[in-house]
Amino acid sequence: MRASQALIATLKETPSDAEVISHQLLLRAGLIRKLASGLYTWLPMGLKVLRKVEAIVREEMNRSGAQEVLMPVVQPADIWEESGRWQQYGPELLRIHDRHNREFCLGPTHEEVITDVIRNELNSYKQLPMNFYQIQTKFRDEIRPRFGLMRGREFTMKDAYSFHANQESLQETYDIMYATYSRIFTRLGLDFRAVDADTGSIGGSASHEFHVLAESGEDDIAFSTDSDFASNIEKAEGLADKDQADAATEALEKVATPDTHSIDDVCRFFNVDAIRTAKTLIVKGVEDAEGNTPLIALILRGDHELNDIKAEKLTGIAEPLTFATDAEIKAATGCDIGSLGPNLQLQTYVDRSAAVLSDFICGANESGAHLKGFNWQRDGELPQVADIRNVVEGDKSPDGKGTITIKRGIEVGHIFQLGTKYSEAMNATVLDENGKARTMTMGCYGIGVSRVVAAAIEQNHDEQGICWPTSIAPYQLAIVPLNMQKSDAVREAAESLYAKLSEQGVDVLLDDRNERPGVKFADMELIGIPHRIVIGDRSLKENAVEYKNRKEGDAVNVSLDELDGFIQAKLAG
Amino acid sequence: MRASQALIATLKETPSDAEVISHQLLLRAGLIRKLASGLYTWLPMGLKVLRKVEAIVREEMNRSGAQEVLMPVVQPADIWEESGRWQQYGPELLRIHDRHNREFCLGPTHEEVITDVIRNELNSYKQLPMNFYQIQTKFRDEIRPRFGLMRGREFTMKDAYSFHANQESLQETYDIMYATYSRIFTRLGLDFRAVDADTGSIGGSASHEFHVLAESGEDDIAFSTDSDFASNIEKAEGLADKDQADAATEALEKVATPDTHSIDDVCRFFNVDAIRTAKTLIVKGVEDAEGNTPLIALILRGDHELNDIKAEKLTGIAEPLTFATDAEIKAATGCDIGSLGPNLQLQTYVDRSAAVLSDFICGANESGAHLKGFNWQRDGELPQVADIRNVVEGDKSPDGKGTITIKRGIEVGHIFQLGTKYSEAMNATVLDENGKARTMTMGCYGIGVSRVVAAAIEQNHDEQGICWPTSIAPYQLAIVPLNMQKSDAVREAAESLYAKLSEQGVDVLLDDRNERPGVKFADMELIGIPHRIVIGDRSLKENAVEYKNRKEGDAVNVSLDELDGFIQAKLAG
Repeated sequence: MRASQALIATLKETPSDAEVISHQLLLRAGLIRKLASGLYTWLPMGLKVLRKVEAIVREEMNRSGAQEVLMPVVQPADIWEESGRWQQYGPELLRIHDRHNREFCLGPTHEEVITDVIRNELNSYKQLPMNFYQIQTKFRDEIRPRFGLMRGREFTMKDAYSFHANQESLQETYDIMYATYSRIFTRLGLDFRAVDADTGSIGGSASHEFHVLAESGEDDIAFSTDSDFASNIEKAEGLADKDQADAATEALEKVATPDTHSIDDVCRFFNVDAIRTAKTLIVKGVEDAEGNTPLIALILRGDHELNDIKAEKLTGIAEPLTFATDAEIKAATGCDIGSLGPNLQLQTYVDRSAAVLSDFICGANESGAHLKGFNWQRDGELPQVADIRNVVEGDKSPDGKGTITIKRGIEVGHIFQLGTKYSEAMNATVLDENGKARTMTMGCYGIGVSRVVAAAIEQNHDEQGICWPTSIAPYQLAIVPLNMQKSDAVREAAESLYAKLSEQGVDVLLDDRNERPGVKFADMELIGIPHRIVIGDRSLKENAVEYKNRKEGDAVNVSLDELDGFIQAKLAG
Repeated sequence: MRASQALIATLKETPSDAEVISHQLLLRAGLIRKLASGLYTWLPMGLKVLRKVEAIVREEMNRSGAQEVLMPVVQPADIWEESGRWQQYGPELLRIHDRHNREFCLGPTHEEVITDVIRNELNSYKQLPMNFYQIQTKFRDEIRPRFGLMRGREFTMKDAYSFHANQESLQETYDIMYATYSRIFTRLGLDFRAVDADTGSIGGSASHEFHVLAESGEDDIAFSTDSDFASNIEKAEGLADKDQADAATEALEKVATPDTHSIDDVCRFFNVDAIRTAKTLIVKGVEDAEGNTPLIALILRGDHELNDIKAEKLTGIAEPLTFATDAEIKAATGCDIGSLGPNLQLQTYVDRSAAVLSDFICGANESGAHLKGFNWQRDGELPQVADIRNVVEGDKSPDGKGTITIKRGIEVGHIFQLGTKYSEAMNATVLDENGKARTMTMGCYGIGVSRVVAAAIEQNHDEQGICWPTSIAPYQLAIVPLNMQKSDAVREAAESLYAKLSEQGVDVLLDDRNERPGVKFADMELIGIPHRIVIGDRSLKENAVEYKNRKEGDAVNVSLDELDGFIQAKLAG
């Protein structure tokens, strides 16, 4: 493409309403424009990126054996009533009426439609498994659309739905989708992690999220330095750093600790690190038959944070997790919360890491007093041990390989084992080996195609602009001729290189605009084209042009004789 | 693709609610399924066709220099209020409210959105011309959706919008689009005509429709046997079959013609063909200053039909064209309508073809009498000559090349010169050479992408099903092994051919289903795959397989040694 004939819509100023970097750069590089809140037009330069992401997703979905379909954006209410979601779904489901006053919605997802199609098309278990996907426009009426493409209202999604005779078959396709997603995000050139995830409101029993790692991500991801292990921080298993506590070396000593209420106070008072201390939290238990609510103690190492989700699942603890008030604690223990420790007359859980402490400091169950040199068994019975904390950087990885690192992630994909949630509600059955109707088991698999574009920018940018991975850059290479309008030599060299690369199928942008070199350089860097060739009279005199990689530092001169092979090597590598 | 792993969703029965052949075959071949009135899901086999159409459209639009964009389906009301169409557009525009009760619509077309984008992005006439297109989901809330994809509510459209500094530039791009559309429909393998068209409600000054010719088309197209001339029948110029009337050979004779009121009556009475007669029609003229409405006579050859649109444009005739009543005619002429002829004391127009009649029969302006052997000049003054009739088969083509043929057409594309209708209403200007703001001139160019799929079927089918043009067939070639489950030889030959063709990039379907040969043959013909190879034990014994072309008659045996070259030649041809 010639830049003079393309819509190069770069902006000098950062639009004031763009909060995150991807939104800022999508606007500044001229990739998208806002039409209304949460609605964006893809300009030519941006659409090239979106289409490249789509093409990779489509190729890999086809390779996996999935079949592409296309379902309507507008869906009738009746199938949503069958699944029960017409009532359940909040105002994010945009409900509309047609001219005959019949109810429809704009599809935020297509479980109902595909289940309706498939229950009519498939009859026999022999036709299973089948996996159908589409790359399609979705609508979700966000109450506060923001962050550009990260949380828009209309967006492009790849959604897939698989149908199975049994759980084993679902697991097989699920594993294929896991591998397919890994190939997709690898080909997209993104640093990502597949994260074992809690199932959201969509229902089902097993799921993974695929996150692109980026500072600006909304979720904390814990992953191993040495293996594929990755998990939402809330779900990652916390391991102790040793198998059992060291032997006691100090004597137990009670110390008056006036005005020490928090772990920080205790550390300052004793001049120790928080990892040498234990803290005791009090939560409410399940109400008993007489209507009494017992209290339950949770003991963690001083530097650790309670994980509510893990704690909630323990026997006897009330859901949702509720902390006891200071008054309730005082009434039950006779002690202020700041001085609580082991040996309370309450049901107690101790975190794995607190259970292997020795010679540690803890509350004395007496207001204004702490114990020093506490050792389990010798000074108090070890309570029931459980995993009740959030993992932290440096923890041992739960799979035994390497240690935990925590980074922020942007969710761009999600694979679910739906089970029979929709097929049961909508009576989607096939005949089994014995000729009996059997409800199909389903999986579903999403990728936020337009969100991937934003996430790629969040992960790949610098002060000059976007640094696209080559596979999804709008153009692979930019030719920037200097003074092309006046120098025949420059024009000829630029046109000849442009013609040759175009013929070779390289996606190349010739910046033939009548602009100053500085403007051209800034635009090409802002847009984020991975490879740049500058052609000017000075280097041409030495029979050379200048090459610069968007992500690397300095430009290098390349002889015209070697240019062909040089460019091929750069594009390949 | 293996048929055993694909959704082959063919139906034996024709669904009762499908009125036209494309709708019937789209359902029977398993290409689409109805979700709700006017809303269809594309099944895998159908989507392959749609994507192939899209790919050809995209390639040719890119080749033309147009840039692809993607605009939202959901559009805010404010820009439609700016253009004035929020009020003008009927209930086909589906108006909706978001959760904040703001007004939006589902886009049936995108003039407003693109004009809004471009008025903000382009500043200078130097950036023009630019042409933007998208391939996107549209919604039109038809009151009575029908004919499947021919008149659905949600559909896929390619719409393009060009922006220009002046009319000459618009004409240049318009001509490029005309050529691009011709290339697109040629590559799609369709018999089509570009038709000079009246401009509809969208506004503007010049337009062409692209029609796929098919029996079931909604429009009558007149086109030349020997040139590119094509026109909606209402707009085609009617020429006389000779330059001037032949010399008179008969004497004028008045004949009593009781009970002859119509041209049929006259022909029967005189035992002549209608082309030897003239008929006189009386319409109302424009009301004069005194409030009187004059009557105007129109004389046509007996076999010709009046073209209202042409007549309406003549000086003195009232719009819309209104026929005088029998009583008004009697009052003005003293004669019944069935006996009117030349020489009335009224303003009169004569059609070109009636003006070159000689020795003809016409009314005598005296009830119950006709004239025989009438010749213009000798027997009455020739009135003003005009083109006031519909063209008929066999007419001379208006461009002087060949004769007129009339066929029915399905409109699949439309190119318009919009002018400044939207740019003026929405204040879309650029600075001209003198630094003055100047309203941009616009063109727009649509192709009904999903409609093309239906039109291709309307034009290409037989009793067995669809006969796809190769370029848009879901698969180019089907391999049908007979008794594959039991014969090792058949299975090996089929698998080996399948592997080889797949590797060569041929889009091939291996029908490895455990079905009877008759079922497989019927399905492959119904789906309309252009080339079929049957592999069975009998022919394999002779080292051969059987080839059949979907559109041709008989199958032929092809030796395995020659199969490679044979298939390549068939696919290329």
